[in-house]
Amino acid sequence: MPFRHVVMFEFDEHVDDEHIERLRDALSALPPEIEEIRSYVHGRDVNISEGNYDYVVVADFDNVHGFIAYRDHPKHVLVIEELIKGHVVNRAAVQYQYGAH
Amino acid sequence: MPFRHVVMFEFDEHVDDEHIERLRDALSALPPEIEEIRSYVHGRDVNISEGNYDYVVVADFDNVHGFIAYRDHPKHVLVIEELIKGHVVNRAAVQYQYGAH
Repeated sequence: MPFRHVVMFEFDEHVDDEHIERLRDALSALPPEIEEIRSYVHGRDVNISEGNYDYVVVADFDNVHGFIAYRDHPKHVLVIEELIKGHVVNRAAVQYQYGAH
Repeated sequence: MPFRHVVMFEFDEHVDDEHIERLRDALSALPPEIEEIRSYVHGRDVNISEGNYDYVVVADFDNVHGFIAYRDHPKHVLVIEELIKGHVVNRAAVQYQYGAH
């Protein structure tokens, strides 16, 4: 069953559009680098609902092992270290298997 | 461009497995009732990461109007009223358009 990792970020007020575009580009560069990624759909909130977070990544893998390989991959860790850690005030994540119902 | 709504819930401690199964079934019953839904992939966190939320819904629509029709649809509102409101300690959501990068 496909395994999905969903993570959302709420950025701190110092994060500007340019930073978010750099994050978008850095995330978009990951799938060719991490073979376990089957689907990688990420993007910025479109601001039509109050209280939303700012950014979401929806990443699919064949199984939990694919997710763990992605989670610990140096290129993924680098994006977190450089563009996410220290720049978010909130983070929310769920990992789940789907297709079972 | 496809429009995606992602929402996560962290339940309060009184929510048991039976409640979550009822929520799963109620959510699974929505797509046949709400024609604007193009994809509806939801599920419970598998508990492999500390601090995760408990449940996530990833719903796709043709555009923002499809999402709004879903958001305001009586059957969707009923699920929120009966099985979500008053049972969550945290909620995080993002709506975004994808396929553009």
